[in-house]
Amino acid sequence: MELLKQRIVKDGTLKEGNVIKVDSFLNHQIDIELLNEIGKEFKARFVSDKVDKILTIEASGIAIAVIAAQHFNVPVVFAKKTESKNLDNDTYESTVYSYTKDKTYTIRVSKRYLNEGENILIIDDFLANGKAAEGLIDIINRANCNLVGLGIAIEKGFQKGGDSLRSRGIKLESLAIVQSTENGKIIFR
Amino acid sequence: MELLKQRIVKDGTLKEGNVIKVDSFLNHQIDIELLNEIGKEFKARFVSDKVDKILTIEASGIAIAVIAAQHFNVPVVFAKKTESKNLDNDTYESTVYSYTKDKTYTIRVSKRYLNEGENILIIDDFLANGKAAEGLIDIINRANCNLVGLGIAIEKGFQKGGDSLRSRGIKLESLAIVQSTENGKIIFR
Repeated sequence: MELLKQRIVKDGTLKEGNVIKVDSFLNHQIDIELLNEIGKEFKARFVSDKVDKILTIEASGIAIAVIAAQHFNVPVVFAKKTESKNLDNDTYESTVYSYTKDKTYTIRVSKRYLNEGENILIIDDFLANGKAAEGLIDIINRANCNLVGLGIAIEKGFQKGGDSLRSRGIKLESLAIVQSTENGKIIFR
Repeated sequence: MELLKQRIVKDGTLKEGNVIKVDSFLNHQIDIELLNEIGKEFKARFVSDKVDKILTIEASGIAIAVIAAQHFNVPVVFAKKTESKNLDNDTYESTVYSYTKDKTYTIRVSKRYLNEGENILIIDDFLANGKAAEGLIDIINRANCNLVGLGIAIEKGFQKGGDSLRSRGIKLESLAIVQSTENGKIIFR
């Protein structure tokens, strides 16, 4: 998606540890118009697929998922990372290791919001090693739902998550795949 | 807002500790159409106010804020609760006590995304004791921005946050104010 790639080049910055910082428009301050274009593009990429629900993970996936959901006319469910009195006790759980935060955490979705046989599209802002995606897929499997595929804004193509999903025949649509960040320059696949 | 009140009565449940559980449509599974009506209503309530940016707090405020932002044509910034390698070191910080989670946490906004003199509207899903709201107002003050007011989906009117803000002349627009939950029945103000 050319608009997103241009924006990454214009406003993204690289930081130590292969971090691509896009918090001026995607995951801290949020450019709503850009998100809307991203949502339209996800709809175009999954236009032939039946989607009953969009699944994402808090926190930064939520913005992109709810704007995309307007183009699919389906509800969003977001997996929670934190314990809360407000969450049902009866949840599907999985475990995710975050390289960015260097810790392992449990993600949870109430069993009430994933019904057997539903077609679930995963939407998230980033895919790198794919740990969050694997956790969400695990939850979809536990709920006996069907995984439609994954819509990702930015994939780090130099990490293994995306290609691992593709090699298993999973439909993965990444709108910008960063192939390399060597010498401080962002090169797309 | 009648539509929201009806939905709270229909799908909301009461749990121990004055918890009003609306996770089937507002803060775990998200009804996008309802959120869009909520966004429209916030715009109507603040139509005479100049708003440059919407500020919210992760995680459940994000969905409501980004949908509302489409009606204001402004960016959203969300305060972060967790340490992250991706966050600038140079942040405005405040401390918030969460009754729901029974812990104190630090919220942070990068100094780059709140500019002196900007008019900031706070949007969030819930207001109870007002601790999160006070943290966000503190950050707005530290950044020398102007607080336009607060748009809240559900206010717990039997807790003191809302009336404390109103008594200080702050413009607070709550779309549904729950005055009482006695005997398991939700009564609106």
